[in-house]
This record gives sequence, C-alpha cells and structure tokens, in this order.
Amino acid sequence: MNDFKPGLDGVIATDTNVSYLDVDNEEIVIRGYDLIELAGSKTYPEVAYLVINGNLPNTKELNSFQKLLLDDSAFPSETYDLLNLIPKSSMVMDVIRTGISYLAGFHSEQNLMDTSENQNLNKGTRLIAEVAILTANSHRILNGQKIIKPDSSKTFSENFISMILGKSVSQKQVEIFDKILTCYIEHEMPNSTFAARVIASTLSDMYGAFVGGISSLKGPLHGGANEAAIHMILDIKEKGGSKIAERYILDKLKNKERIMGFGHRVYMKKYDPRALFLKDYISDLESNIENGEELHNIYKIVENVMAREKGLYPNTDYPIALLFYMLGIPIPLYTPIFFASRTAGLVAHVIEQHNNNRLFRPRVLYTGPRGLKL
Amino acid sequence: MNDFKPGLDGVIATDTNVSYLDVDNEEIVIRGYDLIELAGSKTYPEVAYLVINGNLPNTKELNSFQKLLLDDSAFPSETYDLLNLIPKSSMVMDVIRTGISYLAGFHSEQNLMDTSENQNLNKGTRLIAEVAILTANSHRILNGQKIIKPDSSKTFSENFISMILGKSVSQKQVEIFDKILTCYIEHEMPNSTFAARVIASTLSDMYGAFVGGISSLKGPLHGGANEAAIHMILDIKEKGGSKIAERYILDKLKNKERIMGFGHRVYMKKYDPRALFLKDYISDLESNIENGEELHNIYKIVENVMAREKGLYPNTDYPIALLFYMLGIPIPLYTPIFFASRTAGLVAHVIEQHNNNRLFRPRVLYTGPRGLKL
Repeated sequence: MNDFKPGLDGVIATDTNVSYLDVDNEEIVIRGYDLIELAGSKTYPEVAYLVINGNLPNTKELNSFQKLLLDDSAFPSETYDLLNLIPKSSMVMDVIRTGISYLAGFHSEQNLMDTSENQNLNKGTRLIAEVAILTANSHRILNGQKIIKPDSSKTFSENFISMILGKSVSQKQVEIFDKILTCYIEHEMPNSTFAARVIASTLSDMYGAFVGGISSLKGPLHGGANEAAIHMILDIKEKGGSKIAERYILDKLKNKERIMGFGHRVYMKKYDPRALFLKDYISDLESNIENGEELHNIYKIVENVMAREKGLYPNTDYPIALLFYMLGIPIPLYTPIFFASRTAGLVAHVIEQHNNNRLFRPRVLYTGPRGLKL
Repeated sequence: MNDFKPGLDGVIATDTNVSYLDVDNEEIVIRGYDLIELAGSKTYPEVAYLVINGNLPNTKELNSFQKLLLDDSAFPSETYDLLNLIPKSSMVMDVIRTGISYLAGFHSEQNLMDTSENQNLNKGTRLIAEVAILTANSHRILNGQKIIKPDSSKTFSENFISMILGKSVSQKQVEIFDKILTCYIEHEMPNSTFAARVIASTLSDMYGAFVGGISSLKGPLHGGANEAAIHMILDIKEKGGSKIAERYILDKLKNKERIMGFGHRVYMKKYDPRALFLKDYISDLESNIENGEELHNIYKIVENVMAREKGLYPNTDYPIALLFYMLGIPIPLYTPIFFASRTAGLVAHVIEQHNNNRLFRPRVLYTGPRGLKL
C-alpha cells in the first residue's frame, strides 16, 4: 500500500482530457486552450460547448446549443410548486440541490440510468439550463419575489442575470457577468468535481453526481469563499473604510484568522490567472453603486497587505466577490452562481468518468482498537 | 507526484477509528469489535450507537437513543406534501435523496453549518430516524399507498419493517430484518462513504454528505447489487428453476456477463463474512413464501457453480437479496434499506472527518491537447 496522504494531497486520482492547472506556466488549460484567452474573446456558451464537447462550436452548433440553454420547455412547472414548499430558512444552495434531485424523477428509470455519452450530453445540457432557472428563482422564492421564467430572446448570460436581478441590464454588465461565468466554468479537479466523479464511478446518474457536486461546493472551504470575501470588504467599509484597511488585515493575521479569497491549494503562492484577468473590470463597475471607489480602494489595500505580509495573492473569488457586489447581485447567490457556471465542467467530467470508468474505492489507515470482545 | 492509480485502488485516503476490513483475518472490525459477533448478539440500535459513539451503550444510553430513533416529532409534516409532488416515475433512492435535501432547510443556517461533534450527533441521529421514515413512505407514495408514521411502541427494526410492509410482522422476521440492517451498517470505505467524506471535507454539512452518499449508493456498481441478484434468481426460476440453474450461470459466464452478488473489490476471492453469517437464516424464511425451497435451491446451485468455475464467493448482497424477498419486501426497496442502515456509518464518518479535517483535493494526469490557439 501507498503512504497515507491526508486530503489526497498530490495524489493523481484520475486521467482527464478536460482541463489542467499548469502551475509552473501559470496557465489554466481547458481542452488545450488557455482559459484566459478563451475568457477574453469567447462567450460562456461557446466555452461551455468546448468544455463539454472538446472542440469549439461552429455557428450552427453554437446556435443550437444556445437555444437548448434557454429552453425551459423541458423544465416541469411542478418544480415551482416544489420550490414554494421549501422552508424559508433554507440556504439557496440547498434549494437548488433539492430541485436538481427532484428533476431526476422526470426521466424514466431506463433513461435516467443510461450513462451513454449521447444521453449524458442531453441530460447535461438540460441541467445547465435548469440550474440557471433554479438558481435565480430559488433566491426569488426565498425572498417572496415572483418567479421569472427564461426569455429565449436574450443570450444565456443576459437572461441569467436578468432573472436574478428582475430587471434589464446594460451590455457592459452582461459582458462582465459572462466573463465571470467563463472564469468559473472549469478548473481541473476541485473537491466538487472530484465528488461528482467519485459518485459517477458507481455508474450512478448525472443528477446524482450533480447533487454531490453542489453539496461539496457549498462548503466554506470551497465555494463559500466569494461570499466570505465580500463580507470582509463590507466589514472593513463599516469599520472605517480604506483608512483602517491595513490595520484590519494586520490584526486578523496577528490573530491567525484566515483571509478568504487569497491563496489556493494548487496555486500556492502565485497569482490566480483568473483573478489577474478579472480585476481590471472592477473600475468599469465602480460607478454602478454608491461607494464603489471606496470599496475598490479597500480591495487594493487588502491585496497589497496580503502580498507584502504573507506572499499570498488573490484567487478568483476575490475580484468576483467585488464584481458581483457592484453588479447588484444578492450575496447569498455568489456561491450558487459559481455552481451554475461550473455545471458545464461537471457535465464534461461525468461524461469522461462514464466513458472510461473505474470505481473509486480507496482504503483506510485504521487507527482504532482491535480485538475487543463482547 | 505519485503514480496514477485508477479508482484509487490500494491508495489510503484517510485514517479512521470507525472500521476496517481485515481481509487476511476475514474480519470486519467495527470500533474494535468483530461485526459478525455484534450481529450475532446485539440489535441494530446498539450497534448503531457503537458505530457513532465509539462504545456500546449502557441500558440508559440505549433507551434514550432508541427513543430518538423512533421520534418523528422533529419530522416536519410538510415533508409528506413534498413526497406527494414527486413524479411517479421517480426511483425510490431519488425520492429519499430529495427528502433529505429538503429536510436540511428546517435547520437555521447557523445550526446547519455547525460541524461540531455535538451538533453532528444531533443531526445524525435525527437523520437515521428520518431516512427510515422516508424510505418506507417514498415507496408507499410512489405506489399510491397511504403514509404510515412511526409507532414508538415498537423497536426500531420492527417499526421500520412494519412501515414498509404495512402490517405487523413475526418476531422471527423482525430478528432477521434487524440482523440484515446490522450487517449493512458500516463497511470501512466503500464509494458512498468516501463520497460523503469528500463532501464533508469542504466543511459542508451532514445533509450534504448524505445526499452525496445516497447518490453513490444508488449506482449499479455499488448498492444496486442486491436488486440485481434477486432479479437473477427470479429469472432462473422463471426459465426453468433449479434444474437449469447451472446451465444458466455457465452461459452467462461464457458470455462474460457479470453475476451480481459475487466477489468484492476488497475481499477479492474470499467469502464475505456477512454472507456466511446471513445465509443460515434463509432456511428460517423458506416457508414464508411460495416456492421458497425452490428459490433456495437455485441460490445454492448458483453459489456452487460460481465457486467451482470462478473461485468467487457471495458477498453480503447475495443472501440479503433472497432474505428480503422472503420477507416480502418490495424489490425497489432493497437498495434504499441498505442506505437506511448505512446512515449510522455515514454519521460516524462525517463526524470523524469534521473533527480532524483535511480538504480532499487530488490532482489529475492531463492527457488532452496543449497549446491550442484561438
């Protein structure tokens, strides 16, 4: 047996054609392309198509894929009745999870358990559309707002943010939202992707892998970082703003508190390329909210102090937290939107796992008692 | 980096005090005890208490634990409304999963996300009770039968099987059902337990770990084996019975078809100790159904042929499949009951993961293209 590596640190758990974090070259490789190049010139649906299918779409392929992403005809209206039954104390991530779990039942058992690539593509594309509808409307229902159904005359990202905000949005805002979705789309093998692949390896279905993935992403050590980061920035603003920001961080570091949105298990002490790409968009949105400039100043001071004191750089959650805030997105939706974007990556990984499957079944190091008698 | 081990075969993924498969000595170690000794003289609630707490309960501890396992006062009646909304094409496992996901919302966010041992014990115990109620009633609702609520004057196992069958059951039958639950209770680190620990390692909550676990256990390569085994026995019965059983298996082997209920990734070519223990109970139930003796004969012939031809022995799903059938339990409930029993093991593993956490975040072997340009 191998040595025990807590957290499977450095262990290779699968082979994959989907993506790779090339830490040495500071590149996030997506199906052979650099994610930052993709985010610079392609839209979320184009990159989602690439992630799932392995190649960029031609115009015809893109059009029919985009149509599917805005198609709610397969979204059963009973789902809204389900959402209305959800206790108002629920977390948005849990409402989306209940919705996904429920939607599995609208497939026949035979279709649901069919893990062929073709069926997985169908279910996966449908799920990207469904999760966006669930994400926007879960939060609306928990807050007593009316349901908004998708508008197929819009692009995927424009429709998604419009359902969230309940109003129309400028093209600049749509563009930035789309780039955030693209940056979140796929990232090798974080815990949620690993959880989805572990589950899929029993030949369980796409929906099962998804509920595992969303349960993982909800954890404070995973998807929760973007919400934690904006709470910190707002806390600094509340307690005195940019003039106390340096002292605030130094105090936290002295108390050995964790600063969310900095550092990453894989990148370690390097700058997350997504964070580097996205931070330039903050200035574009500064005027979108009151105190935008002040929040941006706090943002920059915290970044500088963390680099100087700890040699740690922002990961993608740090700029996204402030961008979401400036877009007017309710904070409890930050992690759900991350998940909604990541659905494309999950679809690709489940397809890959099912196409070349080996059941995950590791062993343990038993450290308990032996030989006890009754 | 380590070499790549597909399926993490032989990789030690965690340390644990909960249980260990000692293959050399053919012993399933549960908190230091031999599972088969426990199953011989202790009831499911006693062993569940041991699995979760690390020690066998005294009388007072057992009484208060059993009371909690039959307490439906914390089970929100709205859950039955939810179950009534579920499409009738749903698989029982998915209905239970939707129910678990939904129940998370009845905790405040602060309580739900509290991963302290004490809160995990409370949530875990409540979940064992809730999953039994969900298991029995999911199937009832999908089949248009009336809901049956728990009867706290019964033992846990008597109540559970009575809710399933909708009638009272003999003490012998309750005893055998209880021993099956005990045999399924915990088994080191199968895929479902691993999935639950992977999810819990993001500091996601007990409910999140459970929905991941049930999604995994649903897969045909995991929990589905008991249902597949009884379908095979019934298929042999249909096609000619014990006189064609040998030929039936030989033909399947010739066609390289998999015979479910035999062999095990960890046990390999040894007899699963649980299967050895449980098979003696089959005779006790033979008279419970029509053709009981004939089905038992088919069972024995298949076992003999598999040992002779492949050197493979039954795993626990093989005798349990026939025992469940003889108890009159509907086949779509076999895997859900397995999960309902395993909840105790999942609770123990989530508590252990949260108490000494390290985020699971393995790496990949990237085999796709590099350097593509837009």
